[in-house]
Amino acid sequence: MTFFAKLRSAINRNGTLLCVGLDPELDRLPSDLPRTAGGVLAFNRAIIEATSDLVCAYKPNLAFYEAMGSEGLRCLEETRKAIPEEIPVIGDAKRGDIGNTARHYARALFDIFGFDAVTVNPYQGFDAVEPFVAYADRGVFVVCRSSNPSGAELQNLLVSEGGTTCTLYEYVAWRVHAWNRNGNCGLVVGATVPDELRRIRALVPDLPLLIPGVGSQGGDLSAAVAAHRAEAPAIINASRSVIYASADAGFAAAARTTAQGLRNAMGLPIRA
Amino acid sequence: MTFFAKLRSAINRNGTLLCVGLDPELDRLPSDLPRTAGGVLAFNRAIIEATSDLVCAYKPNLAFYEAMGSEGLRCLEETRKAIPEEIPVIGDAKRGDIGNTARHYARALFDIFGFDAVTVNPYQGFDAVEPFVAYADRGVFVVCRSSNPSGAELQNLLVSEGGTTCTLYEYVAWRVHAWNRNGNCGLVVGATVPDELRRIRALVPDLPLLIPGVGSQGGDLSAAVAAHRAEAPAIINASRSVIYASADAGFAAAARTTAQGLRNAMGLPIRA
Repeated sequence: MTFFAKLRSAINRNGTLLCVGLDPELDRLPSDLPRTAGGVLAFNRAIIEATSDLVCAYKPNLAFYEAMGSEGLRCLEETRKAIPEEIPVIGDAKRGDIGNTARHYARALFDIFGFDAVTVNPYQGFDAVEPFVAYADRGVFVVCRSSNPSGAELQNLLVSEGGTTCTLYEYVAWRVHAWNRNGNCGLVVGATVPDELRRIRALVPDLPLLIPGVGSQGGDLSAAVAAHRAEAPAIINASRSVIYASADAGFAAAARTTAQGLRNAMGLPIRA
Repeated sequence: MTFFAKLRSAINRNGTLLCVGLDPELDRLPSDLPRTAGGVLAFNRAIIEATSDLVCAYKPNLAFYEAMGSEGLRCLEETRKAIPEEIPVIGDAKRGDIGNTARHYARALFDIFGFDAVTVNPYQGFDAVEPFVAYADRGVFVVCRSSNPSGAELQNLLVSEGGTTCTLYEYVAWRVHAWNRNGNCGLVVGATVPDELRRIRALVPDLPLLIPGVGSQGGDLSAAVAAHRAEAPAIINASRSVIYASADAGFAAAARTTAQGLRNAMGLPIRA
């Protein structure tokens, strides 16, 4: 089953667009867990067990695992295995490098870590993205308009090409539309920039969107939900607001409550 | 000692601008080495031993280690330790993510892997780069004009900002000049695009450059050497042409011969 088929199936089964970002930080673990890679794995397993019927995907960001060295990468491998088979997993890596190097990143993320989808960076053009797109059964989300305060610095620049002027993020959306030869591409667009989100949705109605920034970053949940299309889903990610909903022993139950609130606020039909 | 002080010292001591890219691929290892992470470590150690008096830096690209999973990251940790203390090591990671995530990447690359410098991606603006720049004793090379065929796709777009028009790569060079508050930033510019290299050097004469693409990618060595300034060095990287100079048991001696040829062609004074 392709990533997007698996995703749509999880969206419909769980009645949710919620993706939980598994971004563990040692110094934010609940006090009863050891501040080690083993503690992180126990934390992740508890979060997954408490939320897997409320999400359409999980999204571990590799930075938080690399910050623990090779032990952290082993923890990521084990975390991947702890996620139920029917829930797709997005490796948030934002890799971008020249073709021969990109092939090795694709191998790492798809073959070794077994992610169903990844995030990549567009700055080096198509040959840096193509090795990921070549895995036709996996998903590739290209960063288009990021959720951070500095996102506008390059992405909102006006660019000119062949007599047309648009912003750089619109140009990227248009390029990804062209790169999407295997029908497995999407865009990363922050919920913190709802105007840009609406423009992108209007420009590329057929591309799935991965929308971070709801929760701790203060993004606009309703704008994110409005970007959802049955055939081009909006995956709405929350990380810290869910996984750190409580710092005490009840952290998993608190994560479930927060995830449930987000899921319900999305207003999709939920099967009885 | 800061990265740039250590770099200048290595350049002067070894009379070289050569950086060797430690980018091992399992299926290109010499036939007498096992095709495992252990075999890669033995390979890297032999390359380092054969070339460390000919280089000003080493540059492992993380993709090639991640492609071996957590074992590969352990191999990278061991490779780092095998490099003599006086030779700076650039972790070629091209990371780019929002501030909180970037802090974890910076911790991984600087504190855990112990790199003297890293490469980062500019697409998400300054707050994605700042956590790296905050390590004032380390170097931060921002991808400006990459060496790959698709590099022009975004980077050579014309952008308009406040009445001025320039290419995106020139805009990035100008931004990095502004981001360089700790004097520890540089740019990545491919030797495969000598015209762009000359423009960038004219625009930011005070920024060090990391120049890949000499060797297998066919870049212009003399244009790269011409970009060198004593106070803003050009680090000229070759990877595959050096480390795979021979596929048989004499691979280390062949790597040395190729590295020596590149070093000599650079024409810097070599101490007796």
